[in-house]
Amino acid sequence: MTPDDLAGFFARRAELDPEAYVELDFTFECAGDPRHAAAALCSEQSTTQWRRVGADEDFRPRFAARVLELDATPRPSGFSYDIPGAPRGAVHACRATIAHPHGNFGPRFPTLVSAVLGEGTFFAPGIPIIRLEDIRFPAAFLARFEGPRFGIAGIRERLRAHGRPVFIGVIKPNIGLPPREFAEIGEQGLLGGLDIAKDDELLTDTPWSPLAERAALMGAAARRATEATGAPKMYMANVTDEVSRLAAQHDVAVAGGAGCLLVNALPVGLSGIRLLRAHATVPLFGHFPFIASFSRVPGYGVHSRVFTRLQRLAGVDAVIMPGFGNRMMMAEQEVLDCIRACLEPMGPIRPCLPVPGGSDWAGTLEGVHRRVGTTDFGFIPGRGVFGHPAGPAAGAASLRQAWDAIVRGIPLAEQATRHEELRRAIEHFGRRPTT
Amino acid sequence: MTPDDLAGFFARRAELDPEAYVELDFTFECAGDPRHAAAALCSEQSTTQWRRVGADEDFRPRFAARVLELDATPRPSGFSYDIPGAPRGAVHACRATIAHPHGNFGPRFPTLVSAVLGEGTFFAPGIPIIRLEDIRFPAAFLARFEGPRFGIAGIRERLRAHGRPVFIGVIKPNIGLPPREFAEIGEQGLLGGLDIAKDDELLTDTPWSPLAERAALMGAAARRATEATGAPKMYMANVTDEVSRLAAQHDVAVAGGAGCLLVNALPVGLSGIRLLRAHATVPLFGHFPFIASFSRVPGYGVHSRVFTRLQRLAGVDAVIMPGFGNRMMMAEQEVLDCIRACLEPMGPIRPCLPVPGGSDWAGTLEGVHRRVGTTDFGFIPGRGVFGHPAGPAAGAASLRQAWDAIVRGIPLAEQATRHEELRRAIEHFGRRPTT
Repeated sequence: MTPDDLAGFFARRAELDPEAYVELDFTFECAGDPRHAAAALCSEQSTTQWRRVGADEDFRPRFAARVLELDATPRPSGFSYDIPGAPRGAVHACRATIAHPHGNFGPRFPTLVSAVLGEGTFFAPGIPIIRLEDIRFPAAFLARFEGPRFGIAGIRERLRAHGRPVFIGVIKPNIGLPPREFAEIGEQGLLGGLDIAKDDELLTDTPWSPLAERAALMGAAARRATEATGAPKMYMANVTDEVSRLAAQHDVAVAGGAGCLLVNALPVGLSGIRLLRAHATVPLFGHFPFIASFSRVPGYGVHSRVFTRLQRLAGVDAVIMPGFGNRMMMAEQEVLDCIRACLEPMGPIRPCLPVPGGSDWAGTLEGVHRRVGTTDFGFIPGRGVFGHPAGPAAGAASLRQAWDAIVRGIPLAEQATRHEELRRAIEHFGRRPTT
Repeated sequence: MTPDDLAGFFARRAELDPEAYVELDFTFECAGDPRHAAAALCSEQSTTQWRRVGADEDFRPRFAARVLELDATPRPSGFSYDIPGAPRGAVHACRATIAHPHGNFGPRFPTLVSAVLGEGTFFAPGIPIIRLEDIRFPAAFLARFEGPRFGIAGIRERLRAHGRPVFIGVIKPNIGLPPREFAEIGEQGLLGGLDIAKDDELLTDTPWSPLAERAALMGAAARRATEATGAPKMYMANVTDEVSRLAAQHDVAVAGGAGCLLVNALPVGLSGIRLLRAHATVPLFGHFPFIASFSRVPGYGVHSRVFTRLQRLAGVDAVIMPGFGNRMMMAEQEVLDCIRACLEPMGPIRPCLPVPGGSDWAGTLEGVHRRVGTTDFGFIPGRGVFGHPAGPAAGAASLRQAWDAIVRGIPLAEQATRHEELRRAIEHFGRRPTT
């Protein structure tokens, strides 16, 4: 690029209509002049050829992505990773904020993802290593999406659960357990104190556990538990399936008595979530398979909060995400960033419930609550409820006892002297380090 | 796990019904005993809890994923990447082949991806770094998928293009260029010798270039070019959109005269592709946005051939993929692996056309052909046709002249002395190193 070519891909914020652009925060490592690399990142994402051969025209004023901010630090040690065909030259580690005109792709997930995470981002000349750290949308863009139908307030209202975490249990075993036995232990969890007993994300509609049968049994179990406890209880059915079947699976699950639905967000696709959202009459919980494949390695891929934001935009009412503690191999800050992406203002898009999970039990509740810093979260043990030595009802009770201790400011050990379920939970699960 | 627990997640191939399992090749780095890590990888992917508390049952014989092969090499230097919360202990670099029972998830993309690339793979205790290198399906599983409707043979038949590469040009400029001007240069490319003139993967249905208008103009252009040249010419329309609109966009594009369609595979989702395949009356070309986000970093994520195979299984007739040369930052072997994944036998699933791309022009054709080792590929320049100094017709002609030289065994430089278009292509593009 000539200096003039380059200038067409830079702008000051004040020069641009903020409603016309999404903002993208990237970190990257480049070879050669960082200004050239950042301009290439913009041109490849938008209008690489901004004029026809021989024509006197320039599409950049309206269609070019623009560098708003760029910081570059030399990396004398070279690139962090050994990438085939990586360019040569002096290496810099950079941070850049780019304004990308959303009129180029419109308010649709597949075109958005193609524009901001496609060839333009990952094949920009000079940039072998890049990570999309965050994304911000203007109100004009957000207004074209529906977002969560229920959100946190809607989930709380349906559960009559206010001022405390939502208690969710992943029914275990799941793969291989027939529906009747599955519903028996699920019901025990609900009777013991869970708000929601849920399918594992790997448990879908199979011949050995048909969704219709499982939903009918668990729906009946939830109704009985609601009756017995006087508190609304829900079964969360996993409707993850081909997008052509999502609406039908929703209908089967809800007809059986599911009070909310689980859907594996990336495997189904954001666009599939949006389609399900348009049809759904109950809250949707998004789950995280596949996201780690592009978010874990430092400095490369996509920060997981980007897909938290996109799930919220697509309309999930809750985002189940890898939570705190070494088990989930997420930096604490990344978990907090994802939680904030659920809760912080997002124009007209409702907040959704963050559900950070990973090997939780009664003893990890205090740490999760303290880190989240609010009661607006879902607490989601599996084995911590269904692996309790005295059974799922005791496992669920131990969670509520732990929460009671937190509310009343009582040390967990002291609370355990008065509650057998909590005492046995500590005895059984407490040998593992808590988060 | 106890030694007995461990044994339940290992098997010899001969012990298993090969039709009941998909096989997964992983590379990973683990801390601690590699046999424990490999067993955890299997249990987390399948039946982590294989019995209820207190019950005398074992779901593993039918439902467990099993380690078939495991090689481990000590890595005294520790993990390759600095992963938050990575486990401690002696590190090994491992290769494992795992048999995963497909009855656990069924012949559906979202459940397949959840099972083999979900929490079970990326959060197995002891394994912070893992890459799915390849996947193999038994005939019983493949038989539940439709695969490409046309495949290579169908594309060739429609184009009457046999015994040579399919010549495809990405019309440039695209972002910002109005449909009429776009169709003018597209038509020139077709008249000059392209088989197919295509939309860029970022060019979708927008107010400044509505798909209906673009398809009608380009459809007419393709019909005129077919008439003028006596050879079938196609417009490839990009129908990438929300999954709820794919069928409608197909209808709009085909009604306008599109002879084949482009769809961004991962952004739309494999399940969305399958839905489009069920509706489509013309060949589908899959494009590669987003795949680099999880396939580029060595040793982590997913080898790109896995998603080549899955696109083929979902029913695309051609896979556009990052091709040869440093520009696309793919190891040559990875490109070849992806090409092979298109072409090699896959039970009843038809072969699809590999289209390796990246800054190609007439001068790179020989290298691509030599590496692919067959004429069954698509050659897909953008600027190499539409940036030719004498215009798109000359750019397209230069490709055919280069192919003619290859067929006749004439050096390119010699061929250029007889063909002005090729001579100017070499003069203009030849300053860049060819692949």
